Amino acid sequence: MTVTTPQGFVAAGISAGIKASGKPDLAVVHNTGPSFAAAGVFTRNRVQAAPVKWSRQAVADGELTAVVLNSGGANACTGAEGFADAARMAAVTAEQLRVPSDAVAVCSTGLIGIRLPMDTVVTGIGTACEQLSSDGGADAATAIMTTDSVPKSAARTVDGWAIGGIAKGAGMLAPGLATMLVVLTTDAELSADQCDAALRDACRMSFDRADSDGCMSTNDTVLLLASGASGVRPRMDAFTDALTDLCCDLARQLIADAEGASHEIAIEVVGAAYEEDAELVGREIARSNLFKCAVFGNDPNWGRVLSAIGVTDADFDPDMLDVAFNGVQVCRGGQIGEDRSLVDLTGRHVHVLVDLHAGEHAATILTNDLTYDYVKENAEYSS
Amino acid sequence: MTVTTPQGFVAAGISAGIKASGKPDLAVVHNTGPSFAAAGVFTRNRVQAAPVKWSRQAVADGELTAVVLNSGGANACTGAEGFADAARMAAVTAEQLRVPSDAVAVCSTGLIGIRLPMDTVVTGIGTACEQLSSDGGADAATAIMTTDSVPKSAARTVDGWAIGGIAKGAGMLAPGLATMLVVLTTDAELSADQCDAALRDACRMSFDRADSDGCMSTNDTVLLLASGASGVRPRMDAFTDALTDLCCDLARQLIADAEGASHEIAIEVVGAAYEEDAELVGREIARSNLFKCAVFGNDPNWGRVLSAIGVTDADFDPDMLDVAFNGVQVCRGGQIGEDRSLVDLTGRHVHVLVDLHAGEHAATILTNDLTYDYVKENAEYSS
Repeated sequence: MTVTTPQGFVAAGISAGIKASGKPDLAVVHNTGPSFAAAGVFTRNRVQAAPVKWSRQAVADGELTAVVLNSGGANACTGAEGFADAARMAAVTAEQLRVPSDAVAVCSTGLIGIRLPMDTVVTGIGTACEQLSSDGGADAATAIMTTDSVPKSAARTVDGWAIGGIAKGAGMLAPGLATMLVVLTTDAELSADQCDAALRDACRMSFDRADSDGCMSTNDTVLLLASGASGVRPRMDAFTDALTDLCCDLARQLIADAEGASHEIAIEVVGAAYEEDAELVGREIARSNLFKCAVFGNDPNWGRVLSAIGVTDADFDPDMLDVAFNGVQVCRGGQIGEDRSLVDLTGRHVHVLVDLHAGEHAATILTNDLTYDYVKENAEYSS
Repeated sequence: MTVTTPQGFVAAGISAGIKASGKPDLAVVHNTGPSFAAAGVFTRNRVQAAPVKWSRQAVADGELTAVVLNSGGANACTGAEGFADAARMAAVTAEQLRVPSDAVAVCSTGLIGIRLPMDTVVTGIGTACEQLSSDGGADAATAIMTTDSVPKSAARTVDGWAIGGIAKGAGMLAPGLATMLVVLTTDAELSADQCDAALRDACRMSFDRADSDGCMSTNDTVLLLASGASGVRPRMDAFTDALTDLCCDLARQLIADAEGASHEIAIEVVGAAYEEDAELVGREIARSNLFKCAVFGNDPNWGRVLSAIGVTDADFDPDMLDVAFNGVQVCRGGQIGEDRSLVDLTGRHVHVLVDLHAGEHAATILTNDLTYDYVKENAEYSS
């Protein structure tokens, strides 16, 4: 159940030697057709890594034949030489697959501000292309891991067509600076515009709402490649729903893979005047270090939730706010509600329900708590 | 060198019994005149504690005779009853001092969402008013501490007039949810409008630029009381400069009192097109958990600095950014600069210099690193 689940895709993941540890660090995902429609969503950070600049350009014509990905180095803040390295990764892959360079997207993840060891990378691309196979998706998922503790894959099969995906970006570190990379594949017959519309909708409801630490990487990339190999043209609403479901699954896997985190937190904001308000409020709570530390301490600290809501410009009346932790309404009408000692936060999953009482819109943001291990990993790991 | 350094002020700080620990928890600062001009700056959080609502109203006429402050309870999210409690604190203090209720401001700090033990508070106010003295400033500074490890006081004497101040809000927790409370006094002769203008300028350059954890309290309050007892009317630029200097001193004390923090970080942003841009960029860096963890790990991680800059909409070209850590320019023109191993971050003070190369404006933001002890304190301490 991965990127090679849909027909028309082969993949490989190998140890090229980019990582000093010798762990897998290079992957290729290849669309064998018959069609090559594609779309991409990239980091909104204005400081963008070379592979992001390259891939944005490569996908601009709505087609991609392959993606080459490496861990062990982000190729970010590496100047013109770094861009030339990304272009060479695409060119070498393209040569192996006998396609034009601009049919190949490039994704990199790892430390910012160091050049990639290009001899190692080039040799590795050759090896990976030799090993491309229709069951190589799992190896590709493994080769893009950095601080991830488990590879992330998922797939959905619907009415004769399928969608698959791989992702990296450990929950505690990402989606953020440790970089979220996602490759999605489908054998549905789609145009480039259909890929683009569905991908944007799906990302907005999934990866955009997984906010582990509020940081945004220089390298974040989500790509969708459509081979058309099933010969089926899906209804667009059905395709978008399935893609959104798949992306939510991968986003949950990212948040769940938090070796440092002790809680996975879903912040559900309801009663918002606009969906944007619900998202804004959820995100502000998810970014409050004080709230995140309280959850780590199993403390249903609704005062910190209200304080976070209070810095937003969402529509609400402070005296109407309701907050529940795991079903216990500890704050009602902006004041003390049920006894906070009734809340049990010892489990891994925490549900915070905020009712703004300002309208009919809602959104859920996923995040983690802030723990000793988050600090430890980010103090010791350079990204 | 405290709030009672200027002429015309008496103060007291006592153990009223609000805190279970028996530590000092109630303070009064009294302006004995001859004049009573005052100004206040309050939290911009839309969820505001009862004492903030009361004090905003009390200072609206530009005069205050006294401030009553308590630790051990924030009186926030306590509804109409909480507002009545704040009003009663003012009324009881006013009765003791034989002034109208609305001449008394109220400040509270501690846990959100619990009522204050009003019998204890009322008795405490009586005791504190009996003990008011011209050397009571230090006791007042001690009585407003929560997780602070040391009391914060400062004063400046200039050309026949003086300014003094006390503050609370431990560096690691605040200025933020642990609440920053500041009372400033002067014996200069000033009008209410002059107090207001000088206070706003001073806060903008000091407390507004100390950003320990990005959270904003429901209770943050800065008050300035002017007794006119020196009989001197200072030049306004001289007064504003001295007040700004005093506030910067108190802000540094807040950031320095970080038992959990291992570094005090000054982020100086230069070459900005606008002062607002410099502030925005400095604040975004100060709020990046990944950057703060890196400093804790003594890692001059300029990639995380660039990533933080990249999410702002400040004027800059990513390929022009320079970043130096403690004088070593590790990033030049958005790329690798000096060898990062030349940077020594083992000392307590860290200076990060960012040059946007987009103009002539600058700002410095003060913050702390993110440490195990920050997480520990905020997981165990409810605010």
